[in-house]
Amino acid sequence: MKLLRWGEAGAERPGMLAPDGTIRDLGGVLTDLAGAALAPESLARLAALDPARLPVVAPGTRLGPPVAGTGKVIGIGLNYADHAEEAGMAVPPEPVIFLKAPSAISGPDDPVELPRGAEKLDWEVELAFVIGTRAKYVEEADAMAHVAGYMLANDVSERAFQTERSGQWTKGKSHDTFFPCGPWLVTRDEIVDPQALALGTTVNGAARQAGSTATMVYGVRFLVSYLSRFMTLEPGDIVTTGTPPGVGMGMKPPRFLQPGDVVELTGEGLGRQRQRVVPA
Amino acid sequence: MKLLRWGEAGAERPGMLAPDGTIRDLGGVLTDLAGAALAPESLARLAALDPARLPVVAPGTRLGPPVAGTGKVIGIGLNYADHAEEAGMAVPPEPVIFLKAPSAISGPDDPVELPRGAEKLDWEVELAFVIGTRAKYVEEADAMAHVAGYMLANDVSERAFQTERSGQWTKGKSHDTFFPCGPWLVTRDEIVDPQALALGTTVNGAARQAGSTATMVYGVRFLVSYLSRFMTLEPGDIVTTGTPPGVGMGMKPPRFLQPGDVVELTGEGLGRQRQRVVPA
Repeated sequence: MKLLRWGEAGAERPGMLAPDGTIRDLGGVLTDLAGAALAPESLARLAALDPARLPVVAPGTRLGPPVAGTGKVIGIGLNYADHAEEAGMAVPPEPVIFLKAPSAISGPDDPVELPRGAEKLDWEVELAFVIGTRAKYVEEADAMAHVAGYMLANDVSERAFQTERSGQWTKGKSHDTFFPCGPWLVTRDEIVDPQALALGTTVNGAARQAGSTATMVYGVRFLVSYLSRFMTLEPGDIVTTGTPPGVGMGMKPPRFLQPGDVVELTGEGLGRQRQRVVPA
Repeated sequence: MKLLRWGEAGAERPGMLAPDGTIRDLGGVLTDLAGAALAPESLARLAALDPARLPVVAPGTRLGPPVAGTGKVIGIGLNYADHAEEAGMAVPPEPVIFLKAPSAISGPDDPVELPRGAEKLDWEVELAFVIGTRAKYVEEADAMAHVAGYMLANDVSERAFQTERSGQWTKGKSHDTFFPCGPWLVTRDEIVDPQALALGTTVNGAARQAGSTATMVYGVRFLVSYLSRFMTLEPGDIVTTGTPPGVGMGMKPPRFLQPGDVVELTGEGLGRQRQRVVPA
């Protein structure tokens, strides 16, 4: 099942992608894709609906981020060995955790802002997962039951803000529009193996990232358990699991985004994103 | 005006402290102290109420965190020259920013959990401020208008998680109960100068921190403007401004909290907190 949110920013309604490729309105069924709506019993109820009987949303309608009510966005740093190498850093002995401001969440095709004074705006295609039920001190064996599903995400980063401005990565990870999510939340049952998904990025049509979650160091199952030892994961929380190689920072010489550039991202089974860079 | 939230965790109602020292119920006036309720016009409406005509809340009722709907908790690192010295680090040339998980927010007298495997649980008394209206690229001259008010806060930190576990401080700053706030949100008009407030901590009755926001490196006005260049500040967002010296990590030898320990915090004009440490 592919769940989504559609409509103007800040006024999205829930929806789903029907087998015929149309978007269907779930606004008559639930208030929003947030909190308890992400729990297994709620998702089972949605899966039992006949999409053909739901209202059709007009083609071309904007898609927003697929989940609402996100309390925290947790990023995992240096989680692909080959990306760590291009960043000139070692694979960490345990996951690096950072937080992105939830105010950075945007829709999959919304513009990405170049912050004022920014010089090193970069892309990071990532597999993100969404928490469906509360998780605190969860064992790996029980971890996957807490995952509602998966999304494609762009962990947009300003490298100078992130690493040259007195510390803590969050400073370069949290500007508005720095976390395009979607187009859909793909429920867990549709992704047989989250550790075998192709991920790709192009910039202005030129290939930049082409990787696979198969080379991820710390996988989804482990991350749920690991993170739950440091903070309670709540429904709607998003974890974005790190990026494969091919970011602008790693190019020789490094290349960064400018206004007018177009970034396109793909994730196997997860859909596509397309963002144009605009001045903040 | 001293605004607060009272009742069981997760089911708090809004209230205020009356001049006679009683707590009064605002549940009939507004839904919660969140979002638009923190804007100047809303606060003016509350200030116009006669507390004597509001229902009295039973003495001894639990107080929760004074604001709800917090999208992000922004911490400022090493923001007191003397604390930076005890931490063995230099005063940064611009503010260090980190995020705490909003799920860490707790009431002023709620127990603080010692996470499993924790060894270095530490206290940090801080002046926190709460955003009342949206702020993006705000000039310093306009900054204070975006501040709804101030709170006492304990930026509880697990030092091994923060600095010895592969990086990014957030890992040691985000466990449940790691951000006791309150007892009240003191509206901005009641604090003539936020840069001249005494802050103190005792552990089991022994003095540990005794400082003043006068020695803060980057003050409230600057921080609002500075932060608004990196992320949009939204109503209910909390910024906690760093701690004066006297944390456990800085003692010779270092001393950390154990189950049963009692931490008490005071802030001039901001009230008192008291937390007992319990195992997670």
